[in-house]
Amino acid sequence: MFCEDIHSALDSLVSRYDEAVVVMDESLQPSTVSRQLLEGPCLWLKGGEAQKKIETVERVWDFLLEKGVTRRGLLVAIGGGVLTDIAGFAASTYKRGIDWVAVPTTLLAMVDASTGGKTGINYRGLKNSIGAFYPPVETLIWPGWLETLPAREMLSGFGEMLKMGLVDVRRKDVRCTKDSDRLWEALMRYDLDTMPIESLTPLIKACVEAKERIVAADPKEEGLRKVLNFGHTFGHAIEQLIIHNSQFTIIPHGYAVVYGMIAELYLSVVRLGCPKEPLQQLTRLMTEYYGRPQCKCSDRSRLIELMRCDKKNERAGEINCTLLRDIGEPVINEVITEPEAGEALDYLFSL
Amino acid sequence: MFCEDIHSALDSLVSRYDEAVVVMDESLQPSTVSRQLLEGPCLWLKGGEAQKKIETVERVWDFLLEKGVTRRGLLVAIGGGVLTDIAGFAASTYKRGIDWVAVPTTLLAMVDASTGGKTGINYRGLKNSIGAFYPPVETLIWPGWLETLPAREMLSGFGEMLKMGLVDVRRKDVRCTKDSDRLWEALMRYDLDTMPIESLTPLIKACVEAKERIVAADPKEEGLRKVLNFGHTFGHAIEQLIIHNSQFTIIPHGYAVVYGMIAELYLSVVRLGCPKEPLQQLTRLMTEYYGRPQCKCSDRSRLIELMRCDKKNERAGEINCTLLRDIGEPVINEVITEPEAGEALDYLFSL
Repeated sequence: MFCEDIHSALDSLVSRYDEAVVVMDESLQPSTVSRQLLEGPCLWLKGGEAQKKIETVERVWDFLLEKGVTRRGLLVAIGGGVLTDIAGFAASTYKRGIDWVAVPTTLLAMVDASTGGKTGINYRGLKNSIGAFYPPVETLIWPGWLETLPAREMLSGFGEMLKMGLVDVRRKDVRCTKDSDRLWEALMRYDLDTMPIESLTPLIKACVEAKERIVAADPKEEGLRKVLNFGHTFGHAIEQLIIHNSQFTIIPHGYAVVYGMIAELYLSVVRLGCPKEPLQQLTRLMTEYYGRPQCKCSDRSRLIELMRCDKKNERAGEINCTLLRDIGEPVINEVITEPEAGEALDYLFSL
Repeated sequence: MFCEDIHSALDSLVSRYDEAVVVMDESLQPSTVSRQLLEGPCLWLKGGEAQKKIETVERVWDFLLEKGVTRRGLLVAIGGGVLTDIAGFAASTYKRGIDWVAVPTTLLAMVDASTGGKTGINYRGLKNSIGAFYPPVETLIWPGWLETLPAREMLSGFGEMLKMGLVDVRRKDVRCTKDSDRLWEALMRYDLDTMPIESLTPLIKACVEAKERIVAADPKEEGLRKVLNFGHTFGHAIEQLIIHNSQFTIIPHGYAVVYGMIAELYLSVVRLGCPKEPLQQLTRLMTEYYGRPQCKCSDRSRLIELMRCDKKNERAGEINCTLLRDIGEPVINEVITEPEAGEALDYLFSL
């Protein structure tokens, strides 16, 4: 739910419960959220992918136990996607599941993590390998958080929005633009140099609605929902390689998705005859705003190994991707060979 | 599903999956289960309440990862209720949920843990405080396991069967006895000295069916299902006290439920005018077969404290019980006072 006043939206939600506790990103200012809510118990957590581990879930469980939260209680998670994923997973498993509310404070969390019910943590170096499908009772999206979000975080969220623009199966989106063109074209016109919130808001809405439509049709990712994995087979591998190698600087998730989409758009052109234009447009955005990936050809075999272990694979050891026949025409369950994966990586590293 | 041949039942289930792995109680003989299945990967786990912890869940996660199990894989859990609870919880959270099959090998697991979809572990000394509602795709009940089950374990399972006899809301159960009387009377006639499997099997079926009916009507324990908590408010507290105090000898779960039912039947008589007969019958069974509880009046305050933290409570700090107006007439959400709880404990310890 989009809201113009996060304070009153939170207060009205919380008033429906006898008890409510908050898990909040420690980088946020307490003053930005509901006064009523913050009079109650609050656990401050550090953000960042490295926190997405079972030990942090245990901290949330301990907090809930310590505050004596019953099965009728409410957990309010305020923060980025890492925090809402952790808190949502803790809520799904505490006393076999309590209600929770997601309040995404980053663009990435608004357009991605907070919609669709996926919660979870990384485990043994594998992203989101432990978790649950456990949607919050409500997601409160307040674009006001974006006023102070660093450009790097804005670009990361925009990466997932670009993905929605490429996979959204509706040909026209009348609501998000004046001239009724596709979400992709509207995203291409967005001014990434100044990043105005006002013109971003309708695009966020279009992305959230597109994701909601897809998730409603296939909540457990048995088929259609896999279109959302576009860019993520290569993207997750790149992200994991970077996380586990101290010579690299950690990149936001959406950057990895942009790199992954370039590799997968390359394969889409080669295997499915996808037009080259979106690949060229995305490549231009990458060089101009995201920068080239830090990993190189010498990381190829490790990246391929990581893709083989991806939980998105239908069968152990194979590499499963979502590719595109064209913008808005995703094709799921494309099993690619090791040489093809290598070729796509070579292309990406050559840019 | 009841089966006469566990080998073929397992083989036919497993053949529907590309990959299947087994988690099995290490006290069981490999020869007792499907040959086909045991050619595949198997993780042997120790049984016992002390294993019901997050570290054991991590061992199952590690095993699943190591064997490269995908989301399409199947986990077969063969063992007592502790093992199926742990394995079911691991299945519910591995890659956001994979299919699993419960193969209960104890009477307690057959009549209780394996039906109803509750999975979970103990955490910070609190029983089942972390877990999920995540039913197996199938529960295979093969009474053959009971041939070699120790008497103590048989009595433990029988304790939960007694509970079903007291709370089952159907007045008559034509299927389980010749003379169409209630499950409770049929249970009272069962010969606990020789414990014949043949005459136990229809009683097990009646208990499983009774539980299935209740769970189907209220899968998430929002109301009716709470009738199954009869005996468990006091029972869980006694069980936890014993687990955390090395001066006591660990007792099987069903023994604690018998003690809990005596305390709660006492309150049922006092508060709701329940007839005294079932209390007298159960007391006789306790003294003759289960033995008196080890804890005493001096443990009262700790037991009351434990009941206050029970996750079954609707509101933090209050003590919530299921009581009986009569056999087959359970009343949920009875909030009892601290003096009442003390009185019921005094009664139990005076026997």
